[in-house]
Amino acid sequence: MTEKKKTGGLAGVSAGATAICTVGKEGAGLTYRGYDIYDLADNASFEEVAHLLMHDKLPNQAELDAFVARIKSMRGLPDEVKQVLEMIPGDSHPMDVLRSGVSILGNVEPEGDFSNQKNAADRLLACLPSMLLYWHHFHTDGRRIDVETDDDSLAGHFLHMLHGKPPSELHRKTLDTTLILYAEHEFNASTFAARVITGTLSDMHSAVTGAIGALRGPLHGGANEAAMELIQKFTSPEEATQGVLDMLARKDKIMGFGHRVYTTSDPRNSVNKKMSKILADEFGDTLLYEISEAVEKVMWDEKKLFANADFFAATVYHFMGIPTYLFTPIFVCSRITGWTAHIMEQRADNKLIRPAADYIGPGLQVYVPIEDRA
Amino acid sequence: MTEKKKTGGLAGVSAGATAICTVGKEGAGLTYRGYDIYDLADNASFEEVAHLLMHDKLPNQAELDAFVARIKSMRGLPDEVKQVLEMIPGDSHPMDVLRSGVSILGNVEPEGDFSNQKNAADRLLACLPSMLLYWHHFHTDGRRIDVETDDDSLAGHFLHMLHGKPPSELHRKTLDTTLILYAEHEFNASTFAARVITGTLSDMHSAVTGAIGALRGPLHGGANEAAMELIQKFTSPEEATQGVLDMLARKDKIMGFGHRVYTTSDPRNSVNKKMSKILADEFGDTLLYEISEAVEKVMWDEKKLFANADFFAATVYHFMGIPTYLFTPIFVCSRITGWTAHIMEQRADNKLIRPAADYIGPGLQVYVPIEDRA
Repeated sequence: MTEKKKTGGLAGVSAGATAICTVGKEGAGLTYRGYDIYDLADNASFEEVAHLLMHDKLPNQAELDAFVARIKSMRGLPDEVKQVLEMIPGDSHPMDVLRSGVSILGNVEPEGDFSNQKNAADRLLACLPSMLLYWHHFHTDGRRIDVETDDDSLAGHFLHMLHGKPPSELHRKTLDTTLILYAEHEFNASTFAARVITGTLSDMHSAVTGAIGALRGPLHGGANEAAMELIQKFTSPEEATQGVLDMLARKDKIMGFGHRVYTTSDPRNSVNKKMSKILADEFGDTLLYEISEAVEKVMWDEKKLFANADFFAATVYHFMGIPTYLFTPIFVCSRITGWTAHIMEQRADNKLIRPAADYIGPGLQVYVPIEDRA
Repeated sequence: MTEKKKTGGLAGVSAGATAICTVGKEGAGLTYRGYDIYDLADNASFEEVAHLLMHDKLPNQAELDAFVARIKSMRGLPDEVKQVLEMIPGDSHPMDVLRSGVSILGNVEPEGDFSNQKNAADRLLACLPSMLLYWHHFHTDGRRIDVETDDDSLAGHFLHMLHGKPPSELHRKTLDTTLILYAEHEFNASTFAARVITGTLSDMHSAVTGAIGALRGPLHGGANEAAMELIQKFTSPEEATQGVLDMLARKDKIMGFGHRVYTTSDPRNSVNKKMSKILADEFGDTLLYEISEAVEKVMWDEKKLFANADFFAATVYHFMGIPTYLFTPIFVCSRITGWTAHIMEQRADNKLIRPAADYIGPGLQVYVPIEDRA
């Protein structure tokens, strides 16, 4: 998100209470249920974090084992969903694919009573990567892949399905860490959309469908793809510096910098940047990482805008062989944990979210019969 | 919406500016682009109102003719959408059907550049009734209906497809009037969801998909169905009075009464009530209308809660032979005009909608390695 002005768009206006997350407040500036994001990124697995968000606590080993086994058992796709994924054009926006897949799942496996909500949430966590990569392979190489692998982690499962073989531990662990960083972010636009939908006491699939639609936008989740496209435009750090200066002079939007809530840095950036460097060295890259650093520097020097979570995530994914158009969908596979946590929190103390508006339209108009209208 | 408390849920908090609608302010308490809802309900057609909302002005005759012809030409469904509608189970929630239909349409006919937005909006207005009734007939009587009729009005087209023959002018005009009343309502929850999604610069289908998901909830569009179910529970006005008293004593939620913004009455109710009486007399009903009046009276006497737009709309639709589970989807077929007007307005002066939250969770937690957790 690139956003400098702090007025309008409900900036700084509280839309409710949450016990899930702080942004720009305690510890490193990002906590999930009180745990500092650096602690979680350094020490926890994504599945532990998912349990923390969706099931309210960091699991002990027995709880984690049960959770992992449960999620693994829920990866399969109903035939109806597979048929729809095959029917969706191969050149569709993958976020539209996930939005449609989740919506159809809500028809085939409706949530029903809210007492089923944890089950519906776990199911979504388990099968989003299946939807995405089933569609991806069907349309890129004509294969109907098996969406059930033996990998315990979502990160391993994802890369296994994508590349057709289990990933290296470095790649698995790196993707796992980015999933932790992306899991939750308080009342960001997609989560807030999910809460607005939930506030009418609608179902979980409606709320998640709306959230995917919001995350799709370039001012939100779409930023990591836009960052990659920017970085790949340049052939040297010098060209990148000049190119960004030119873009700034033209007042072009540059994605992956600044944030609505953070003011001086995004705590997730240092983690992503470190991982990007490690993968660049392993990949043998001598260009994209340096271009990224050059873009980061000129944005700070010229605009005092810092790289946010999306900027270095782009090259991290690129070095793992993930196609750019799957970057934002990976965000979905992670953020589903935060979304469902917020949906359940909203329901626990629900109030319809219905703001007021400032009217700036015409005063009372005289109705003129159609035959007398100009 | 039943909502009495005016705190929380952004009640009374401005989330932005709009030139489209006033609620509880001027004229009768509801205006569309400055026109009083009573003027529009008494004198305009739904297509004129749709043009007013989506194309910024009441059309003259030539503009209206062109608009009607254009919408008529856009009623057909792509094969992919028909196939998905056939695949969606017949016992699905029809709001889930529309949510999925719109999402799939966004894959098959993506909006693309925002310069195409008016076209995408018109297309949705034209084909929502087609989606709904194609699915309805396929699953209730096994027929693949023709979704292109010669009816000029959406109301006539809808009833024609539903009943397999053109409706009486009384029924067509009555449905038309309810569509006018439901078309737009400022920053209601579904419209606000659409604006939050639009705020990330996402596409129109994402925003409308989210809006449908929000309208689905019983605290929003679902209220007209809940009202019908309540009315049909009783066999006499006396039983209704006592039944509602019992429900109030048990603190049960009673749908179709009160409103987040209106404080003493909903201007749409008197129009719906009058139409319900006319149709009751035509239908030969001597019960449901009187039960509705009894419920309205006891809610006012006991709780000072007034019937809102949803309460008498229920019997209006019932007397036209519309199945209860299609009531909220009809709301979608109308409100698409307001939603798309707001999506276009949000884009014209966009700002990411990202509020803050009050943190009520735990303070900074000490991270404990998994082997040491209880």
